[in-house]
Amino acid sequence: MTKNIKVNAAILIIGNEILSGRTQDTNTSTLATWFNSIGVKVEEVRVIPDIEKTIIDTLNLLRKTYDYVFTTGGIGPTHDDITAESVSKAFGLKYKVHSEAFKILEAYYKPGEFNEGRQKMVWMPENAELILNPTSGAPGFNVENVFCLPGVPSILKSMLGGLKNKIVGGEPILSHTISLRTVESEIANSLTKIQDKNQDVEIGSYPFFHAGKLGVSIVLRSVIQSRIDDCNLQILEFVNEKKIEVVDR
Amino acid sequence: MTKNIKVNAAILIIGNEILSGRTQDTNTSTLATWFNSIGVKVEEVRVIPDIEKTIIDTLNLLRKTYDYVFTTGGIGPTHDDITAESVSKAFGLKYKVHSEAFKILEAYYKPGEFNEGRQKMVWMPENAELILNPTSGAPGFNVENVFCLPGVPSILKSMLGGLKNKIVGGEPILSHTISLRTVESEIANSLTKIQDKNQDVEIGSYPFFHAGKLGVSIVLRSVIQSRIDDCNLQILEFVNEKKIEVVDR
Repeated sequence: MTKNIKVNAAILIIGNEILSGRTQDTNTSTLATWFNSIGVKVEEVRVIPDIEKTIIDTLNLLRKTYDYVFTTGGIGPTHDDITAESVSKAFGLKYKVHSEAFKILEAYYKPGEFNEGRQKMVWMPENAELILNPTSGAPGFNVENVFCLPGVPSILKSMLGGLKNKIVGGEPILSHTISLRTVESEIANSLTKIQDKNQDVEIGSYPFFHAGKLGVSIVLRSVIQSRIDDCNLQILEFVNEKKIEVVDR
Repeated sequence: MTKNIKVNAAILIIGNEILSGRTQDTNTSTLATWFNSIGVKVEEVRVIPDIEKTIIDTLNLLRKTYDYVFTTGGIGPTHDDITAESVSKAFGLKYKVHSEAFKILEAYYKPGEFNEGRQKMVWMPENAELILNPTSGAPGFNVENVFCLPGVPSILKSMLGGLKNKIVGGEPILSHTISLRTVESEIANSLTKIQDKNQDVEIGSYPFFHAGKLGVSIVLRSVIQSRIDDCNLQILEFVNEKKIEVVDR
């Protein structure tokens, strides 16, 4: 049994379209939820432009700081897809045709359709390991702890299943949510006291507006279920005292 | 007439709920679109946890690197709202009751409702300038080039109108989108040539799937309209040659 092993990750979103506001990123939420389910804590997300030096510098910082770095975006066939070449440079590896990826795409496309544009997608850092793509053929890849996935959300999602054996998570992060018909200011002091007494449980407070009514969701997170249960009881105690209604969202 | 003034910004999203995947961030897209409209280029986004040292270190780096830093989240009444105190420490300023903010909230709430929890929201860095909140009373604030807004998207949006006079933008960043019924690999080489010849126009290529059909949106961005128009003509030239259908999304 592994105990108290903390495994962390950073997500690096590469793409001008997120920074300009043109595209709403949803990959962060997809990846964060998935990491959470396998016991990996996401400690940082960065969104950066399609600029080679920025990608290289950021990657070299993040990969030394966190157990895993997942990038999204920039592995397609066009001129603004520079992630694979940047990763090669960050690791000091040759950027070259990956023969296994070449075979996969050669078999994926109809004869004659594996054109020059598509062939760009098999250029990768030397000896990269492939991440299979059940949706559209072109694989992602990883070098050491850096995993490169595409930016298109549906394709990214479809590739996560194949990654489970490559990622070693820690203890799963458990959570419990209590939703209350109240406002944050009514419970702020009580919550502060409970957080002070329970440092090993992360207590978050999030106002919501649902079906025309205000409320607050309190989220308890810990790797130890009994600590969440303890905290939950302490919260229900002041909730009862203050006669606050407990609701489901 | 001001020419070629580049003004940039970073967005700092503060909140465990984004990193855990519980909450889908939409403030980045809101802020990025708004910045774009006033001639400010967002060059970086970071999402970090509710940890004081992380907030202070990140703020001190970003505020020296970019013209503007906008933070979202962590200015409510609960224990996990530590942005205002962290900003105070980052700037070496006292963290104290802001008398103008106190007056605003005292007038906003009914007599007796401006309780201890709510009073936490008027603690700010000394001499911070207020950012008015037309939705729920509690103001945001700025110290020098650091602007602190709440995390609730509807409230954040409502506060942007009051900020226009505080932010000096550069030349507006113009954009033009051409949507094509094709796939990226068919146009990758032609686009690369055009990007190489037109370094002052940022050309992005984004696949889309709409109404059951695949397509690619090409986005041209520049501060000079005539350069976008030039590029647009060059693209339409190869589009006609290749007999690619131009579509609206």
